[in-house]
Amino acid sequence: MQRSYDRAADGLRPVRITRQFTKAPEGSVLIEVGQTRVLCTASVEEKVPPFQKGTGKGWVTAEYAMIPRATQTRTQREATKGKLTGRTMEIQRLIGRALRSVVDLKKLGERTIWLDCDVLQADGGTRTASITGAYVALLDAIQYLLEKKLIKTNPIMDTLAAVSVGKVLGTQVLDLDYEEDSKAEVDMNVVMTGAGKFVEIQGTAEEVPFDRADLDVFLRLAEKGIRSLMEVQKTAIETNS
Amino acid sequence: MQRSYDRAADGLRPVRITRQFTKAPEGSVLIEVGQTRVLCTASVEEKVPPFQKGTGKGWVTAEYAMIPRATQTRTQREATKGKLTGRTMEIQRLIGRALRSVVDLKKLGERTIWLDCDVLQADGGTRTASITGAYVALLDAIQYLLEKKLIKTNPIMDTLAAVSVGKVLGTQVLDLDYEEDSKAEVDMNVVMTGAGKFVEIQGTAEEVPFDRADLDVFLRLAEKGIRSLMEVQKTAIETNS
Amino acid sequence: MQRSYDRAADGLRPVRITRQFTKAPEGSVLIEVGQTRVLCTASVEEKVPPFQKGTGKGWVTAEYAMIPRATQTRTQREATKGKLTGRTMEIQRLIGRALRSVVDLKKLGERTIWLDCDVLQADGGTRTASITGAYVALLDAIQYLLEKKLIKTNPIMDTLAAVSVGKVLGTQVLDLDYEEDSKAEVDMNVVMTGAGKFVEIQGTAEEVPFDRADLDVFLRLAEKGIRSLMEVQKTAIETNS
Amino acid sequence: MQRSYDRAADGLRPVRITRQFTKAPEGSVLIEVGQTRVLCTASVEEKVPPFQKGTGKGWVTAEYAMIPRATQTRTQREATKGKLTGRTMEIQRLIGRALRSVVDLKKLGERTIWLDCDVLQADGGTRTASITGAYVALLDAIQYLLEKKLIKTNPIMDTLAAVSVGKVLGTQVLDLDYEEDSKAEVDMNVVMTGAGKFVEIQGTAEEVPFDRADLDVFLRLAEKGIRSLMEVQKTAIETNS
Amino acid sequence: MQRSYDRAADGLRPVRITRQFTKAPEGSVLIEVGQTRVLCTASVEEKVPPFQKGTGKGWVTAEYAMIPRATQTRTQREATKGKLTGRTMEIQRLIGRALRSVVDLKKLGERTIWLDCDVLQADGGTRTASITGAYVALLDAIQYLLEKKLIKTNPIMDTLAAVSVGKVLGTQVLDLDYEEDSKAEVDMNVVMTGAGKFVEIQGTAEEVPFDRADLDVFLRLAEKGIRSLMEVQKTAIETNS
Amino acid sequence: MQRSYDRAADGLRPVRITRQFTKAPEGSVLIEVGQTRVLCTASVEEKVPPFQKGTGKGWVTAEYAMIPRATQTRTQREATKGKLTGRTMEIQRLIGRALRSVVDLKKLGERTIWLDCDVLQADGGTRTASITGAYVALLDAIQYLLEKKLIKTNPIMDTLAAVSVGKVLGTQVLDLDYEEDSKAEVDMNVVMTGAGKFVEIQGTAEEVPFDRADLDVFLRLAEKGIRSLMEVQKTAIETNS
Repeated sequence: MQRSYDRAADGLRPVRITRQFTKAPEGSVLIEVGQTRVLCTASVEEKVPPFQKGTGKGWVTAEYAMIPRATQTRTQREATKGKLTGRTMEIQRLIGRALRSVVDLKKLGERTIWLDCDVLQADGGTRTASITGAYVALLDAIQYLLEKKLIKTNPIMDTLAAVSVGKVLGTQVLDLDYEEDSKAEVDMNVVMTGAGKFVEIQGTAEEVPFDRADLDVFLRLAEKGIRSLMEVQKTAIETNS
Repeated sequence: MQRSYDRAADGLRPVRITRQFTKAPEGSVLIEVGQTRVLCTASVEEKVPPFQKGTGKGWVTAEYAMIPRATQTRTQREATKGKLTGRTMEIQRLIGRALRSVVDLKKLGERTIWLDCDVLQADGGTRTASITGAYVALLDAIQYLLEKKLIKTNPIMDTLAAVSVGKVLGTQVLDLDYEEDSKAEVDMNVVMTGAGKFVEIQGTAEEVPFDRADLDVFLRLAEKGIRSLMEVQKTAIETNS
Repeated sequence: MQRSYDRAADGLRPVRITRQFTKAPEGSVLIEVGQTRVLCTASVEEKVPPFQKGTGKGWVTAEYAMIPRATQTRTQREATKGKLTGRTMEIQRLIGRALRSVVDLKKLGERTIWLDCDVLQADGGTRTASITGAYVALLDAIQYLLEKKLIKTNPIMDTLAAVSVGKVLGTQVLDLDYEEDSKAEVDMNVVMTGAGKFVEIQGTAEEVPFDRADLDVFLRLAEKGIRSLMEVQKTAIETNS
Repeated sequence: MQRSYDRAADGLRPVRITRQFTKAPEGSVLIEVGQTRVLCTASVEEKVPPFQKGTGKGWVTAEYAMIPRATQTRTQREATKGKLTGRTMEIQRLIGRALRSVVDLKKLGERTIWLDCDVLQADGGTRTASITGAYVALLDAIQYLLEKKLIKTNPIMDTLAAVSVGKVLGTQVLDLDYEEDSKAEVDMNVVMTGAGKFVEIQGTAEEVPFDRADLDVFLRLAEKGIRSLMEVQKTAIETNS
Repeated sequence: MQRSYDRAADGLRPVRITRQFTKAPEGSVLIEVGQTRVLCTASVEEKVPPFQKGTGKGWVTAEYAMIPRATQTRTQREATKGKLTGRTMEIQRLIGRALRSVVDLKKLGERTIWLDCDVLQADGGTRTASITGAYVALLDAIQYLLEKKLIKTNPIMDTLAAVSVGKVLGTQVLDLDYEEDSKAEVDMNVVMTGAGKFVEIQGTAEEVPFDRADLDVFLRLAEKGIRSLMEVQKTAIETNS
Repeated sequence: MQRSYDRAADGLRPVRITRQFTKAPEGSVLIEVGQTRVLCTASVEEKVPPFQKGTGKGWVTAEYAMIPRATQTRTQREATKGKLTGRTMEIQRLIGRALRSVVDLKKLGERTIWLDCDVLQADGGTRTASITGAYVALLDAIQYLLEKKLIKTNPIMDTLAAVSVGKVLGTQVLDLDYEEDSKAEVDMNVVMTGAGKFVEIQGTAEEVPFDRADLDVFLRLAEKGIRSLMEVQKTAIETNS
């Protein structure tokens, strides 16, 4: 099996993280994973949803969208249709949940951080790229809050990144591009912390059910990929902007 | 930790499956898992969605809803709100995907089987109960198609059931009820075939990330639970109706 | 004309009322009228709609839905369509209005009782079965409020039940099932109090206009049917649960 | 009780019917009943809804709306809200059903007549005025079809008009204006044919249930009012336009 | 080119303005421009939209709709479709903006004036007729506020009217009717104050781009037309009602 | 008055046009006008809307959106709200109309070109930047059609660009940024062809009505700006990509 960028089965596509891609947001990150490109912005809003009011705790939530021609053929705008698809809802719930898992909402205080992930080009792995990029945007927003002295202590509890793994033509592979994804027998998304613990595992047998042996390989590949992604995140964060 | 029905950590709640609960549908199953009660109907429709037209293949899809007072406090009807919540979309996508995994769509022919899962009472585990019950309703609908000679060969490729596992107060447990679910550190839904393979694994760390050791226990508990559920399915199917 | 259950023209189908069908609601009644089955729940909410705020008066309102396969062929979910049909709106307005007519809203205090009528199987007369069943669920919710000492005096002013009458193949009949309803020349729904007074009369000539003589027969049949339904209600209420 | 226009309990408000109020529609009637003013247009469309296709039969349907300031205080536009209220749905279903009752759909042929009833000013009785006015607009549209030789025989089977009756301060009255309607104990709408038969009776006890004696008076009042309305319709139709 | 009403290129169609067309609204104006007929009502509401709260300033806003058969063939109701078309949104934004331009919102105080423009018959120029008619309805609503002593000083800063101009078959013309509009090469709407200044110019080349020379003619025609419209407004206002 | 980028009243902000910004679309252009950044993609679809079917003519249409944090404070997603705002509708209608004015739809053949303008950062002038950028994306899509031999002759009839002009603090200026726009007395958008003719003029007096003298200055400034923008377009087009 020939993979894009001449990768081995356990190889990631080239990853690039650009901070301050736009100026208005408290955090603005363009993440590129091969041809997949997602703009992740973090916006601070000084209020919380009704269910969190008066608790002293903040909230972190995500929204996800693709521009119509992020895909090979044009996809109709959800705003034009008047409603979100199930796929979009599922993805933005996943991103929000993942990011919340590394934030101490008490330390954040009664405010919301919105993570908007807008896919400019989709070539597989947009949801995991969104999580990996949104984490960096979130850090910049937290930095903003610390500098403005709106919060005293950093509420970030651990680093976070995500990657997809799967089985294509009988082989377990890391970081599927669109072509691989569309013929995958199994597709799995893994979100992991810097401590090496799982925040989310979502594995789906698209064609052929998988067994424990597959799962073991998937998780090993995922950990390897996430470690590499965390290196890219670290470099991006340390680079003065 | 005291569990409902005096169960051990690896114990299921009492499960009851009633076929032909209502008369109109080709399959109509009431599944009760403790206090959770879901009415699963299977309806045959002699057409397929646009993307499947002309392929010779059929389709299996699911819809999920709760009556407003299935829950402890009344939940607003989605029909009144005018849209489905993300939770509902996510669940009905999961149910449809799971059931499709054991159906040979070619043998089904160009027709759709709708699996409607309506929760009459919700006490945790409604999505896994829906899958387990819908599987039996699906079998009855397939039986109907065979008897009417609308299909020649049985398109069902394997048995299927689902269960939830999780970690509550530091202990890994099988089949969480609502009270356990609301305080769980980790929540995982597992869908498995009779061959013991995974169709879907969805694990979420609600509070505390989990590690490989946890995962191993979760999957062992899930397999045990699913084996028991398959026994109940088998008894229900074999009972003349 | 041969009627289901070998009934005479003035005969009701077998009626069964089961209280506490589910556990969470303050009132939960399954009413079965022949093959028609409606689950009626009563939920107390400690607030009122805006137009009633500050008046010291409560509110009683109803919502009605059918599960997709309550009907002979599957009906699309209103939640999926994103809006209620005119039929549903008309029915739930009727149920709410009927129930309010026997409640002293002042004695209820500033709270709302929601009556949710979910049709599990539809074989004609679902709206009148909903009213008859919801009345019993309402009583149980009122009993709950009295026991919890949330209200002091019983706000229920009279008993209430409803039935359909109509003209089929030239004959006036009581309690039409789906087959009769679909070929009825005239269809009339009557809601009556224990004092024998009318709360609602809705008569529609589907095919052939009707005259005063027809109307007199319709109302005599309706009164007879409603008297019988009130006996069933009474027995259900008096049975300890 | 002093009534508007110094009417007796059995008196109608002044009624005026103006044909050809606007030029584009096949039928265009302004009906004024006291201060209530409704513009009823009839539009011919050379197709039928899906359920009627291929049957050789036509369809007659109605839509109803109020301009925002038809009422004493401004009512929000349903187009702005994005959905029809239950009241609107109920009314337009009633108007359509009533008009269909006097049309032989077979003779109409596979075409639809749309009856649009737009209330310019609302002072009680808008739904019955809509029916009475729409009947005249329908006749003009039928005349148009006959003149254009699109149909050969007149599909109208009888004349049709509607009126409201009710009980106000204990007195049964004909043709309630808004002020009377808002304090009525009972409100009833009656649709009748020229042959003196009922097409629709919708009686609702708003405050106090009513008995057979009330009903008898209501129906006598309604018949008297409808006879007068039919005189006004007749004069309008016979006047050359 | 033969124009309707034997008009010259710079001629207006006959214009008629009827005040107090309906009784409930604070201002109610029927404006007729040839066959175009728009009912413009002005409604006072004692509150402002959120963005204006606490500023001491009022608000003026407009809504626009056509009854379904205002047009040659029936147009579907926006309330039935569940959303406003872009055309409607664009028009009602224009009307609101235009009217606000001659109102001192501070003198109006924290209240809203709603201008509802409902087109009863459409024969071209409905948006400019709406502005011209709504201005008179607005004056009546202001007069009402002054008489009720709800405001002390008149917030109206200037007179206002609007007209369409365009190029049809190579000729620049004033006040296009529907037939002209549908074949116009250029279509321009001009809103002007009594002081002869522009509030809005919206010119669109439907088929052939236009040049400065065209523009000069358009604006001269528009000013001439608007001067005439202001005479009609003045006469309507001065006539005791 | 100090302007951004030390511009004179008749100065444009720095403009940059990047072709092939993303790979999937037939045309993909990032246009930057100062801090305003819009991604304009052109997508070819081999079908036309219903009203154009069978005419042999094609269609060009536009959609416009902003990512939530394109603005200084986060704007709610229209997909989440479930409907487009009036502003969005107005803008996308303008863009579509403008681009259609330079395309010979007959030569395009029965296909649609979708122009999607997604604002990544908004600092004033997003609608005119969208038109200017979309024109270049359109050219690339046309080039694609010519190369694929799907069309024989180039349907583009002229070049096209757009700019905003206005009056700020009494001075007429070219190309307003957000800060200027928010305090402008007059705001005007001008779309012009290479032949120097107007396709669209939309001028709005936000605070103070304007006169002919203002208009003359506005149009002179607009022409100057548009000439410069056309130079940038030309350079971008000629640069090999």
